[in-house]
Amino acid sequence: MAEQIDSGLQLRSLVKKEGQLQVSLETVTTPEPAADEVIVRIEASPINPSDLGLLLGGADMSTAMLSGTRDKPVLSATVSPAGLKAMAGRIDQSMPVGNEGAGTVVKAGSSDEASALLGKTVAIFGGAMYAQYRCVKAADCLVLPADATAVDGASAFVNPLTALGMTETMRRDGHTALVHTAAASNLGQMLNRICQKDGIGLVNIVRSPQQVELLRKAGAKHICDSSTETFMDDLTKALKATGATIAFDAVGGGNLADQILTCMEQVANSDAANYSRYGSTVHKQVYSFGRANTSPTILNRSNYGSAWGISGWLLMPFLHKIGPVDAQRLRDRVAAEIKSTFASHYTQEISLREVLQLDTVAAYNKRATGEKFLIVPQKA
Amino acid sequence: MAEQIDSGLQLRSLVKKEGQLQVSLETVTTPEPAADEVIVRIEASPINPSDLGLLLGGADMSTAMLSGTRDKPVLSATVSPAGLKAMAGRIDQSMPVGNEGAGTVVKAGSSDEASALLGKTVAIFGGAMYAQYRCVKAADCLVLPADATAVDGASAFVNPLTALGMTETMRRDGHTALVHTAAASNLGQMLNRICQKDGIGLVNIVRSPQQVELLRKAGAKHICDSSTETFMDDLTKALKATGATIAFDAVGGGNLADQILTCMEQVANSDAANYSRYGSTVHKQVYSFGRANTSPTILNRSNYGSAWGISGWLLMPFLHKIGPVDAQRLRDRVAAEIKSTFASHYTQEISLREVLQLDTVAAYNKRATGEKFLIVPQKA
Repeated sequence: MAEQIDSGLQLRSLVKKEGQLQVSLETVTTPEPAADEVIVRIEASPINPSDLGLLLGGADMSTAMLSGTRDKPVLSATVSPAGLKAMAGRIDQSMPVGNEGAGTVVKAGSSDEASALLGKTVAIFGGAMYAQYRCVKAADCLVLPADATAVDGASAFVNPLTALGMTETMRRDGHTALVHTAAASNLGQMLNRICQKDGIGLVNIVRSPQQVELLRKAGAKHICDSSTETFMDDLTKALKATGATIAFDAVGGGNLADQILTCMEQVANSDAANYSRYGSTVHKQVYSFGRANTSPTILNRSNYGSAWGISGWLLMPFLHKIGPVDAQRLRDRVAAEIKSTFASHYTQEISLREVLQLDTVAAYNKRATGEKFLIVPQKA
Repeated sequence: MAEQIDSGLQLRSLVKKEGQLQVSLETVTTPEPAADEVIVRIEASPINPSDLGLLLGGADMSTAMLSGTRDKPVLSATVSPAGLKAMAGRIDQSMPVGNEGAGTVVKAGSSDEASALLGKTVAIFGGAMYAQYRCVKAADCLVLPADATAVDGASAFVNPLTALGMTETMRRDGHTALVHTAAASNLGQMLNRICQKDGIGLVNIVRSPQQVELLRKAGAKHICDSSTETFMDDLTKALKATGATIAFDAVGGGNLADQILTCMEQVANSDAANYSRYGSTVHKQVYSFGRANTSPTILNRSNYGSAWGISGWLLMPFLHKIGPVDAQRLRDRVAAEIKSTFASHYTQEISLREVLQLDTVAAYNKRATGEKFLIVPQKA
């Protein structure tokens, strides 16, 4: 029997102005691809931390309830007034979800470029991936190596390009080594592999002895556990050994960025010949790209002078800034090393329907280190 | 009687490892100027907020005591263990103080450039100005217009170049209007005059109705009082009216930077066509150049997406970055407008000896808006 590709399920997230989140599955018509477009049958799409904000709309998941039917479940939860304010821009708009995924090209537009992709396994990026079919520009498809499956390629964009974006930003900003917080995450392990392969000094900051062990086994040299009493000393030593003056911080809240800047300044001053009450002239930079800790960021600023900066960092603006040629160079490297440097590992494969089940939501919303969920939209 | 310029008084600040600050007056020998140097008789030197850290060494001034003789008084005070740690780089080194000043060239080296300055009134910068004589490179002297006195030129560097550095940084970073906190200060009033003259949109943030009135009388258009309940709304309106996306913050501590970024993002989103949960793509920047509030900086980061940055900003690294030609262009403008745009007003003139008197210390260490002290080192 021929595959029915004229329609398929798509996950939708809606925040109503009354303060209610509603996640549902809709049957949507697959568009006819334009000449330069293809239809990809999505076979694998990860749940990244960066997907959860759009998916769960800032709702209080302790209030979550399931209704609807078995095939078309509806997940509801309450959004607080503060959460509602933060979601102001998306109120009453039904939003598709899912940053990235991979699958097979099952239909192609008339252009040569599109036709050439028919039957190929490709990785794609750009939202609305929690669906059975997705229409995309042929030019936006990353063709995976012949021995790579859709599962291999499901996470070919967000984590790989973020990790490469860090080392690329490090070089462009004139630094030679870097710090990464939440270093035991899937992303952190990937960055660790890149740095080992490229010979870049990396200071891994983690939060537990278990995470130290995990990275140690992965060959990491500099691992600092922020849960220990010797953290500041350990960090200062690792910064001195690597010369790292730039950090990528996924934690966001609390005083971790402040601690990093303080230790960097201590290293800079230990090398300085003369006292300056304005601090060292070595520029110390923290890029903040996540908010694992949603409490406020606290900067004591007592010990790092004036040559410092904290900025937001986000993948898409970064790719836009470096331009299409350099962005493609990064993408090509990801495709070539998708089964080694950029391999992701999943602890559970779930169907679209299961994304809405209360126990499953509770599990992936924990964002536990070492746990990663893969949506397989073709599973019933 | 010929002037005795072979020696003179110099103010010194010493932090001892036992945790004691000692401020004293020393008689130092005036060096013989090299070919390219001149000796300036310092006639006026301001006490800037940026001088106080070096002068008072982080000591607890409630413990201050005066000893020594009438002509050679010694001010002592206790430095806390935390303060001592912050001063680690200067322990047991007797430091001269005073960033800038002005006076008459009373002796010159053999070069044409140096000789040409003999008898001229010049403004100078670079430390050790709380003294009766200072040997400097002729090239570092800013010759004042014929009708300007040393008092007119005493503050020709720190505030004027900082204010010009703000509008210059604004342009170089691609912004078109700016925000200034502590806007009622001497520096703030100067920036207000620059912006009016140059047609630059300026949002003045102040802390009291009196300061609103002061700036209103000085012709400022956008004044927001952070002590009022309508502050966030007022600020958002002023940001919208001016299009300011960069701020210079002298306050440092508390949540003011966070409030500024939040209001900037609100304006950016009110102009945006589509919702993005990553926030607007408009880069919002706060440069922090002071610490009027020494409590920690708190960033809630709930509402300004990822296109933001907070960085330290300091005059000397900025001048170094723009290079000698552009720095001279700024200095030339200051000299030309020293009696108008860049005029400073002082509430008290004090001798070097008076800098050490307990009641005088208490007065200038208050850093009260509208009060500014000028040291006149030739006064007995």
